[in-house]
Amino acid sequence: MSFKIAVMGLGNIGRFAVETLEKMPDGECIGVVRRPESLGRNAISLRNVPDFGSIQDLISAQGRPDAVLVCAPSREVPGQAEELLRAGLCTVDSFDIHARMTEVVDRLGSAALEGKAVAITAAGWDPGSDSVLRALFEAMVPSGVTFTNFGRGRSMGHSVAARAIPGVADATSITIPLGGGRHSRLVYVVPEEGACMDKIRAAIAADAYFASDPLEVREVTAAELPFVADASHGVLLERVGASGLTSNQHLNFDMRINNPALTAQILVSCARAAVRLREKEAFGSYTMIDIPPVLMLPGERMSNVARLV
Amino acid sequence: MSFKIAVMGLGNIGRFAVETLEKMPDGECIGVVRRPESLGRNAISLRNVPDFGSIQDLISAQGRPDAVLVCAPSREVPGQAEELLRAGLCTVDSFDIHARMTEVVDRLGSAALEGKAVAITAAGWDPGSDSVLRALFEAMVPSGVTFTNFGRGRSMGHSVAARAIPGVADATSITIPLGGGRHSRLVYVVPEEGACMDKIRAAIAADAYFASDPLEVREVTAAELPFVADASHGVLLERVGASGLTSNQHLNFDMRINNPALTAQILVSCARAAVRLREKEAFGSYTMIDIPPVLMLPGERMSNVARLV
Repeated sequence: MSFKIAVMGLGNIGRFAVETLEKMPDGECIGVVRRPESLGRNAISLRNVPDFGSIQDLISAQGRPDAVLVCAPSREVPGQAEELLRAGLCTVDSFDIHARMTEVVDRLGSAALEGKAVAITAAGWDPGSDSVLRALFEAMVPSGVTFTNFGRGRSMGHSVAARAIPGVADATSITIPLGGGRHSRLVYVVPEEGACMDKIRAAIAADAYFASDPLEVREVTAAELPFVADASHGVLLERVGASGLTSNQHLNFDMRINNPALTAQILVSCARAAVRLREKEAFGSYTMIDIPPVLMLPGERMSNVARLV
Repeated sequence: MSFKIAVMGLGNIGRFAVETLEKMPDGECIGVVRRPESLGRNAISLRNVPDFGSIQDLISAQGRPDAVLVCAPSREVPGQAEELLRAGLCTVDSFDIHARMTEVVDRLGSAALEGKAVAITAAGWDPGSDSVLRALFEAMVPSGVTFTNFGRGRSMGHSVAARAIPGVADATSITIPLGGGRHSRLVYVVPEEGACMDKIRAAIAADAYFASDPLEVREVTAAELPFVADASHGVLLERVGASGLTSNQHLNFDMRINNPALTAQILVSCARAAVRLREKEAFGSYTMIDIPPVLMLPGERMSNVARLV
């Protein structure tokens, strides 16, 4: 089958999602949904995909998508996804607010059951593929501690959170690993004219995204901002412990990647899984640790078993 | 619930399986099935678990196990598992003969449907957890090549295959990574009295386990054999490629482990998954890429989502 995918939002992730869908061997992007006032803008990012001011307009023109990639800022994701799910559309998102994870899984689960649809949430790299690795590592080595060491790189979630602080015109947040799963945050801020940097610093420090880590906030100009950070990122996941009664079992996962490109790719791979789960009438909400990995890959199950197992 | 697990076979993996079950927080080993002539031997390896000459004897004494860990040499696994599945018992095994994988998944699938049971096959680290990683890596970075670099360490599958060669009293096969997913095999052989080492070399070289790799066979005495290899092993899984249209995405998994201890632990974690799949009446055969990772972990789904996602 050829999967028909829609993209909601043409921000950092949405743009990469459109690119990624261009290369999807078994699917295509049938349209982008964005704010009506943005229609027609950023034609290069649209890559010849039509854009629409609402999901209803997209459906009227292109038919129903098999799945919608919800590429909004995390705080807007649950509301947008719920609405789509109730209307019977499968959704995939990279919601990343850890403290609200089970609440969002529950909410999307109810909406998905109501619409007889499937939601895959937290489908990025952390949460997402890192979550799968943490689960797999615990199944392999149940006694021990996993350290998730992020970076060095720009955190999209933290950057968006910093930009939402009053007085901030633009911002970029860099995550620096300190070892042992601890991190510091280095936030470059372009203040709005007349804004007080001390107030901005205090507001960032109080935000849930930043409250638990060492923080440094640096003021930069709008012209400097593009040169202090790019999309490079990575993670080192480490687990040392025991399998059964046997200690000294060492597991390490080290990844160096373009951040939004990987997030967009995982959204697309999970869209494949979402549609397949709906075909089995396995309606509801899932995270990546809840889905069989084979469902994310193109091709038939048995050919992937033959190739990968 | 407390999972009741039986272990079939008390070889290298079976012994570690008994140990691992001793530490399983939500289950226990209710018995070991072994050849009647072995009953009562290796009391230390049994760790106070009762042993039985047949699964029927085990069931008569202990009741039905929720799952049986089939810890036989790979070539005997499909036959043993089929019989258990037809009798309605869930099985987990670490069958590792790649060329026969889809045939065995099919065979166990038929038997499992007949017995309304669940089989998880190829549940070790390769095939097994490495298979999950290869699938996940492809979902993250669809364009590219994954190299699986084994070792340096003793391959249990290759050692068993070498021991089955006529004229071989005992043998150990060491896997040495050559880079780019290529390996050489170093086989230490204790010949039977009067056996011809040249014939043994030729027979090993012709065996399906060894036919495709550079091979060196060295003759050792029975006294020397325990000192040329232990249970240390590992793997380096490497993938470089593109997510969507974005190249230079680097994924690396590096693991250094006690080989049978990890295999036994994965069998135990998959036993948990098998019983849960049967509870959902999802009868049939599975490999590790076919199962949601969360099913392998103790505890409720939502508490693991809260902890790991």
